[in-house]
Amino acid sequence: MKKNLNYNYAFLFYDVKVERVNKVFKICKKYLSHFQKSVFRGEITPSNLILLKKDLNKIIDQQEDFVCIIKLLNNNVFGEEVLGNKQNDTGEDLII
Amino acid sequence: MKKNLNYNYAFLFYDVKVERVNKVFKICKKYLSHFQKSVFRGEITPSNLILLKKDLNKIIDQQEDFVCIIKLLNNNVFGEEVLGNKQNDTGEDLII
Repeated sequence: MKKNLNYNYAFLFYDVKVERVNKVFKICKKYLSHFQKSVFRGEITPSNLILLKKDLNKIIDQQEDFVCIIKLLNNNVFGEEVLGNKQNDTGEDLII
Repeated sequence: MKKNLNYNYAFLFYDVKVERVNKVFKICKKYLSHFQKSVFRGEITPSNLILLKKDLNKIIDQQEDFVCIIKLLNNNVFGEEVLGNKQNDTGEDLII
């Protein structure tokens, strides 16, 4: 049943070799907002999610790299708390 | 209404100065599972979530550090996809 849900919001974390970081960063930034270090987040349509994964799979090394996408129905299904410096709390200001 | 929800699962990302990384890591590991770099995740009771925040607030610098906790109702409200090396996909093996 979970498989049929339409996820429209995502968090993405990556851990890729330094030589591919720039390319992976650019791909993620095309679809999501940069949130913190190697974490991206934002609204994304199911079709763009497919494109994001396709783009990433072209770049990453299947053995050395790791990308995890947490898909959520929308931005109402989670709560958020920020400790410390809240200036970076959403990263939405980094949207181009 | 969101405020009254009982969140029982969390993702946590941190970006703290190097001199406090070890302490923050240990606190997070006490309550959650290490997932990737500066990302933790796992089931957590609302009361433990309060303790986690209390412990973190004692250690972090409110100006220099940043900790974000994404709270979810349970581990059924999100979907997950891993690209690349799936050996690290859950981090659950790192639970002590």
